[in-house]
Amino acid sequence: MPALGPNAHLIGRPGSRAQLCTPALLLDLDAFQRNVALMAAFCRERGVALRPHAKTHKSVEIARQQLEAGAVGICCATIGEAERLTAGGIGNLLITSPIVTRPKLERLARLHERAAGLMVVADQIAAVDDLARIAAGTGRALHVLVDLGVGRQRTGCASTAGALAVARRIAGANSLAFGGVQAYAGHLQHVPEMAERARQGAPEDAKIEDVLEALSADSIAVPRVTGGGTGSHAIDAEGGLFTELQCGSYVFLDVDYRRVALRADAPQPFEPALFVRTAVISANAADHVTTDAGFKAFATDGPRPEILRGAPQGAEYFFFGDEHGRVELPDAPRHLPVGSVLECLTPHCDPTVNLHNVYHVVQDDALVDIWPIDARGAI
Amino acid sequence: MPALGPNAHLIGRPGSRAQLCTPALLLDLDAFQRNVALMAAFCRERGVALRPHAKTHKSVEIARQQLEAGAVGICCATIGEAERLTAGGIGNLLITSPIVTRPKLERLARLHERAAGLMVVADQIAAVDDLARIAAGTGRALHVLVDLGVGRQRTGCASTAGALAVARRIAGANSLAFGGVQAYAGHLQHVPEMAERARQGAPEDAKIEDVLEALSADSIAVPRVTGGGTGSHAIDAEGGLFTELQCGSYVFLDVDYRRVALRADAPQPFEPALFVRTAVISANAADHVTTDAGFKAFATDGPRPEILRGAPQGAEYFFFGDEHGRVELPDAPRHLPVGSVLECLTPHCDPTVNLHNVYHVVQDDALVDIWPIDARGAI
Repeated sequence: MPALGPNAHLIGRPGSRAQLCTPALLLDLDAFQRNVALMAAFCRERGVALRPHAKTHKSVEIARQQLEAGAVGICCATIGEAERLTAGGIGNLLITSPIVTRPKLERLARLHERAAGLMVVADQIAAVDDLARIAAGTGRALHVLVDLGVGRQRTGCASTAGALAVARRIAGANSLAFGGVQAYAGHLQHVPEMAERARQGAPEDAKIEDVLEALSADSIAVPRVTGGGTGSHAIDAEGGLFTELQCGSYVFLDVDYRRVALRADAPQPFEPALFVRTAVISANAADHVTTDAGFKAFATDGPRPEILRGAPQGAEYFFFGDEHGRVELPDAPRHLPVGSVLECLTPHCDPTVNLHNVYHVVQDDALVDIWPIDARGAI
Repeated sequence: MPALGPNAHLIGRPGSRAQLCTPALLLDLDAFQRNVALMAAFCRERGVALRPHAKTHKSVEIARQQLEAGAVGICCATIGEAERLTAGGIGNLLITSPIVTRPKLERLARLHERAAGLMVVADQIAAVDDLARIAAGTGRALHVLVDLGVGRQRTGCASTAGALAVARRIAGANSLAFGGVQAYAGHLQHVPEMAERARQGAPEDAKIEDVLEALSADSIAVPRVTGGGTGSHAIDAEGGLFTELQCGSYVFLDVDYRRVALRADAPQPFEPALFVRTAVISANAADHVTTDAGFKAFATDGPRPEILRGAPQGAEYFFFGDEHGRVELPDAPRHLPVGSVLECLTPHCDPTVNLHNVYHVVQDDALVDIWPIDARGAI
């Protein structure tokens, strides 16, 4: 577990937000907890289970709060994330990418012995046979879902026939239990307009429906249909196909997702809760100042960070190397002095979190806690 | 210090490279050590000192080997890097970005008490005064260089007059010692053609020369002129202005730098030494397979990773989300089965290293050691 870093002595001190060493990843506790509660309530009302994705936050404490709010379990992207969360006492994990290759299967076998309710996915028959072999050694059934390829075909079976064959193989293995169907349409999540997102999702839903019919015809009971994300959650909850949703980013809301209309009644019900605090370290240029947060503090796979606090309206952040940001200022006032501190909404939240060691948990002007990013680097 | 990860039990086993859990960051020990020796010899022959930049590798062990090969010290980009290297027994550190804001100055004061030969930079008078104040409390002089802004003006004084004023302030402070001039022309490093790089560098050199003349006229002795990088090292060594070079990436050579002609006599004297090993985890699509390395295993601020081993000629890697890569295959053979393992040259090496916890040090087909990335996340 990473140490709590150079700001640990500030926890609980009034005004300590202003004394944080920069760059620092901030989590607004109240906004975060409202987001957790809002999604939990939404799923409860619609009768769909919530299994939030920990790839977003990689945190035992956040997973714990999600479970406390009513989540049925937690998703992990990697065996490493599942190991760290298990070590932190989190159960009912679903690893959402296929586990293949011998070294990872060996880790999975060891994890399965100590992780209550662990589930995995498979998208080919040979992988099911590998899972059956390692589970046979542990003396308890491993729950395996068939992964169905939708959208850009990142993982998953490419056809109903393929999915049926994999499901049959799972159901027929003594050491395995058939856990249901997973289908994650990643390509839909960031489509800005809700109607367009629903339109693009319809053929994917048809694929899922086709697989469910084939399983039913084969008398294979389907304990769960899991998938969806923050972008598609409202559509998926209405659609009636999914029994549980794998939303992740709703806890933080990032620059990407703030542009996406998430619900028909309230386009953006979630609040930005995750920021990077960065200080101006040089101000000798005519047209910009330089801050201490660059490629190693913000993810670079998506949009630029958005300055929310600390700079005049219209100031914009641009990447300026590994450790630096360039802030271009509007016409007047032209200058931000050295030592000024800005807070920026994180661009793509998942890979941004993965760059940091801890969350600096703030309420108003105080640092109230520091939570380790337990599974950081557990790729 | 991060733990050694899931592959630690493989150290020293013949054939263990093939048994590594993926994704894994690999360091080819022989190629790496040849790179270290080659740059050390070059600087020795040209009579210029080498102070390699640890922002690239963030590793105590690599810094130790660079010092053993003759480096006069090590550069750090952040106070956090300097703290971790100091804890690992590395001395003679230069922090290459201005340290401002009170929380960082307090850390610097504590570090200065235990870090022999620590040097920092400043680009404004108020910052010099802050440094003088914290150094006064420690009882030993802090060496401060004036940072001169060149190129894109990321940090540094914008004019000769400004640099002279800062240098005078340093030289006049009782608790400080004037350490010389730093000028880092980051914008030159990746200019592919050497002649064009030299042409673009000439006006920057003129700025440095102007400052050196002003300091000389003011009878301020200049202990060192430090700057340069892997891209400009040969030009800077010839130019006669720099007394020490801050090269970083030469130890690894990445996709970016492999395209840059580094020397007149031998355009690319360094060897690729840093790779990410990644496995195919899904292969159900007609036009691609999916691997287990994405945004969280490779930096995304530069070019794409290049597949060097494990795939047919012409196969190309594309990012496919946080934890996934899409490998598009040439016409024939069309398929790479699940479990196939590829090794990719890292795109931009510095932020790629920062994503991982350890180097898997390999020689031929064996894992021979694991080195922690001690300052990972020390932003």
